[in-house]
Amino acid sequence: MLNFDFYNPTQILFGQGKIADLDKVVPKEAKVLVLYGGGSIKKNGVFDEVMQALGQRSVTEFAGIEPNPSYETLMKAVAVAREHGIDFLLAVGGGSVIDGTKFVAAAALFEGEDPWAILEKRGNNITRALPFGSVLTLPATGSEMNAGAVVTRLSLHAKLAFSNRLCFPQFSVLDPSKTFSLPVRQVGNGAVDAFVHVMEQYLTYPVNAPVQDRFAEGLLQTLIEEGPKALANPEDYEVRANLMWCATMALNGVISTGVPQDWATHMIGHELTALHGLDHAQTLAIVLPAMLRIRKDAKRAKLLQFADRVWGLREGEEDARIEQAISRMQAYFEQMGVKTRLRDYGLSAADIPAIISALESHRMIALGERREVTPDISRQVLELSV
Amino acid sequence: MLNFDFYNPTQILFGQGKIADLDKVVPKEAKVLVLYGGGSIKKNGVFDEVMQALGQRSVTEFAGIEPNPSYETLMKAVAVAREHGIDFLLAVGGGSVIDGTKFVAAAALFEGEDPWAILEKRGNNITRALPFGSVLTLPATGSEMNAGAVVTRLSLHAKLAFSNRLCFPQFSVLDPSKTFSLPVRQVGNGAVDAFVHVMEQYLTYPVNAPVQDRFAEGLLQTLIEEGPKALANPEDYEVRANLMWCATMALNGVISTGVPQDWATHMIGHELTALHGLDHAQTLAIVLPAMLRIRKDAKRAKLLQFADRVWGLREGEEDARIEQAISRMQAYFEQMGVKTRLRDYGLSAADIPAIISALESHRMIALGERREVTPDISRQVLELSV
Repeated sequence: MLNFDFYNPTQILFGQGKIADLDKVVPKEAKVLVLYGGGSIKKNGVFDEVMQALGQRSVTEFAGIEPNPSYETLMKAVAVAREHGIDFLLAVGGGSVIDGTKFVAAAALFEGEDPWAILEKRGNNITRALPFGSVLTLPATGSEMNAGAVVTRLSLHAKLAFSNRLCFPQFSVLDPSKTFSLPVRQVGNGAVDAFVHVMEQYLTYPVNAPVQDRFAEGLLQTLIEEGPKALANPEDYEVRANLMWCATMALNGVISTGVPQDWATHMIGHELTALHGLDHAQTLAIVLPAMLRIRKDAKRAKLLQFADRVWGLREGEEDARIEQAISRMQAYFEQMGVKTRLRDYGLSAADIPAIISALESHRMIALGERREVTPDISRQVLELSV
Repeated sequence: MLNFDFYNPTQILFGQGKIADLDKVVPKEAKVLVLYGGGSIKKNGVFDEVMQALGQRSVTEFAGIEPNPSYETLMKAVAVAREHGIDFLLAVGGGSVIDGTKFVAAAALFEGEDPWAILEKRGNNITRALPFGSVLTLPATGSEMNAGAVVTRLSLHAKLAFSNRLCFPQFSVLDPSKTFSLPVRQVGNGAVDAFVHVMEQYLTYPVNAPVQDRFAEGLLQTLIEEGPKALANPEDYEVRANLMWCATMALNGVISTGVPQDWATHMIGHELTALHGLDHAQTLAIVLPAMLRIRKDAKRAKLLQFADRVWGLREGEEDARIEQAISRMQAYFEQMGVKTRLRDYGLSAADIPAIISALESHRMIALGERREVTPDISRQVLELSV
């Protein structure tokens, strides 16, 4: 096991009816800015429940945080927060709204000239942030229980990540029943996103960390079992609860303690979203199968363990077991409604050079758990995923 | 899955050499009280490393916190803390030292007449506590990453638990190499303690919580694999690291999210320690096998799952598989050097009535995940464990 430093102070309020607990965890005298996305929370009752729980507190709204939240939109929220003397942020939505709220929390108190510097410095220059919490409506990114976020600057076609320990939500409310009304596409994307988060922390090389491995495998097995049930029976509370907890546990730091991490698939995926607007999970479903095939030798030991423990593949030649495990994973992504080839999204080999150039311009030139994923390997991965 | 509320803000600094990081996490101006036990930390170098990391800070020592820390000893530490204007506590030791430090942290600022009231009210009356951290030297109790503690009042033969969110360590340093010099008895006790902690949260009844089940099973499997290796090769760093992380994860709240909990074995075990001075783990090793046999029908579904997933027992009659799983568990405790019968410790059926009376006097009359464990059932459990 590698040395590590773990810290995660986010309180999780989990279960049906838990939105009412906002009254206990949002300070009574707070001037609250409620941030949300396209307005689905006004149709499914979540917004009303939140407002009721906030009671007599001073509330300002900021609507319109888009998927892959943009710097341009978020700076408008920063202006609103400053103008109204906001001292507490409440994100109500999925990972994009929560990621965006983290940026607003840091940017509202940022002392430099332009808060875009937060992205340029990966969050290392954050010294203060507004306190905030979240009400999660879409299990996927894990943002509700970590200190990281990804923000896109549309004018630059740049999608960059930052993190800082000042950017943990103070609390997150997870009510699985609030996910019943999600569109099928978002349910599928969410399960794939969580699955790939686990893989980025698990599918590297062995470091004798059996607890972390078994936790990761437990999350993968549960996502495989529960994901299709959520599509088939959208109002099964137990299924939604299990998916929701998987997505949170997939990226709250527990399974990454003391193990190497990859994240090359995410970095390539970010460029696909920035350049072509694909959903985040779509980019992961495209890149990961090819990444595992191209890097098969470097990842051999863990791929065999993945084949054995997650898919029950114990017979036959090593290479055949590995290929079967990757194929099964790819079939799972497709089963969840997320296509896994560039061509499924109207892209072709002709689009690859621009993606590689974008990686290079963002200094994504030595990715993966051993920094071995050069632009040339990224190109091979994308070529295999056409 | 049941509704839950999870919160755990303790920072974990894990790995060889991490004691030096105390300089980063203990406030520079702190007046520190360093609490420890029988002095082994002065022989194995831990004390010197701690003092070096604390540098120029004002440090007072309090030695002599015993296994099953006593109210009588801890009140002396409270007096020292008050006398020296201490504003930060540092526990250096195992679960007893950390548990004791939690009591000192709360008692030093307690506003009632006698801090014993903290135990009588199970910690619900704590409104303030001194900040504290820990350097863990014995993986076992999980106290390094939770807000609970158990304190014994010798004059009353009472061993009682309390917990409060103000009693989380701010940080805990876990350096597995510092456990190389532990006596065999403490290594065995630690593994059994962690194993039974997991069982108290896992072996109840199914609530469709597959993530929590798999995490619990992963911890049990790892304890079974690594425990004997630690006895055979005391200086194997990787083995010690895995045991240490198991013990912490076994009782930091992660595996108890959304599931029922038992703890009847612990409550009966506490009386055995209070009356007869047995090691905590010894009491658990005595009580748990009999508890599972007596409560077989109420726990049938989870016992079968335990037999299948932890011990690989899938053939034969249900009752035979259950008995085999319990026997294997009992053999594992014995393998770790912890005897599993009352007679192994010089106790007999004649000692049982006093234990039952103690349970009754502490109102432990409806224990277990369904409050079904009456004094009569506790008596049957003890009779079966003679």
